Amino acid sequence: MSKTYTPSPRARVKRAHHRAAYDNESVFAILDSAQIIHVGYFIDDQPYVTPTLHWRDGETLLCHGSSASKMLRHLRHGAPVCVTASIFDGYVLARSPFHHSANYRTVMAYGTARMVEGRAAKEAALDRMMQTLFPGRLAECRGNTEQEIKATTVITMTIDEAAAKTRSGPPMDDEEDYLTVNAWSGELPARHSYARPVADPRLDPGCPLPDYLNPYRGR
Amino acid sequence: MSKTYTPSPRARVKRAHHRAAYDNESVFAILDSAQIIHVGYFIDDQPYVTPTLHWRDGETLLCHGSSASKMLRHLRHGAPVCVTASIFDGYVLARSPFHHSANYRTVMAYGTARMVEGRAAKEAALDRMMQTLFPGRLAECRGNTEQEIKATTVITMTIDEAAAKTRSGPPMDDEEDYLTVNAWSGELPARHSYARPVADPRLDPGCPLPDYLNPYRGR
Repeated sequence: MSKTYTPSPRARVKRAHHRAAYDNESVFAILDSAQIIHVGYFIDDQPYVTPTLHWRDGETLLCHGSSASKMLRHLRHGAPVCVTASIFDGYVLARSPFHHSANYRTVMAYGTARMVEGRAAKEAALDRMMQTLFPGRLAECRGNTEQEIKATTVITMTIDEAAAKTRSGPPMDDEEDYLTVNAWSGELPARHSYARPVADPRLDPGCPLPDYLNPYRGR
Repeated sequence: MSKTYTPSPRARVKRAHHRAAYDNESVFAILDSAQIIHVGYFIDDQPYVTPTLHWRDGETLLCHGSSASKMLRHLRHGAPVCVTASIFDGYVLARSPFHHSANYRTVMAYGTARMVEGRAAKEAALDRMMQTLFPGRLAECRGNTEQEIKATTVITMTIDEAAAKTRSGPPMDDEEDYLTVNAWSGELPARHSYARPVADPRLDPGCPLPDYLNPYRGR
């Protein structure tokens, strides 16, 4: 169901607030489109920003990694985090240096990180990641071993509040510059796509590309 | 000149350390290839991760924005920051869920943020940004006004230490899984490119695309 986060000062977009949105539909669309997230936390007054794959389960964001990872060993104890998902959509070239800009979609989400406890819950969360990325693949892989589940930490964060911010479209120049400046102006759109899948050299050459990889067939 | 950062515990890569590099050639190559960076800092025990455009001047990383920006108003007072640049190079599909992975190039750089002071130094830094992205464009735009320079904050961070981490290539499965599991396995390479430039609707249709936009002509 659609819902709007009520931003506290930490989440409220101060600059260019006409580009902000706080409804979860906007927030989820960007989180789901981003290939990776950047997780921010600090240990002993030192900030860290770690990139990682992610997936979403309703209002919960998840990531995973080795149980020996510095980030995950810190986050599992209930650390405050900021998770940022950013999609760079291109450069915006204006007639003055000042009005140059970027087009982008970004979310900054805030919450407390916690570890998913228990083998069944961990495995269900990991299964959901695979199901989200490659629906149907799980049945083709071999199952997890006890040791593999043990060696994996899954971190979950309920999104307490979040702000989406986007810019799109042409430059917004000062009115008189449209008449007097001859520099080429417009957008350089960035594209994030996939090239043709590359089979593992050790894969049986007769093994077909499964249907769930159609979105990754390249262009 | 080539140089290698000596990582303290904060920068040393703990997991999969064979994928780490600390020489500035590796670090700079990734910083320069990334379209944006993510800047990590904290205010009152709340971490923040802000995406932004960036440029580099030797061992110094720079970013800029409105003087009213929450991030920039905080960073200009000498805050410890972690700057992360990440390029997602694709998914790696293995025969077990556990060995699924991503290919990527990432840098985590550490230092203290400071504000560039004085109109001349600020303008020189901003000019360098334009020169880095679009060589030759500056001469075509109108010049900066006093007010525009005043309204812009430029933040600089000398890289005290940094770690690059990369993964590339096919999955690394358990030996027996190569024989017994039939799931398609390999790489789904991500591509980050540009589409054809889109002229501002208000641009004189006779205005040609300048040479410095050749890298952005799209494919």
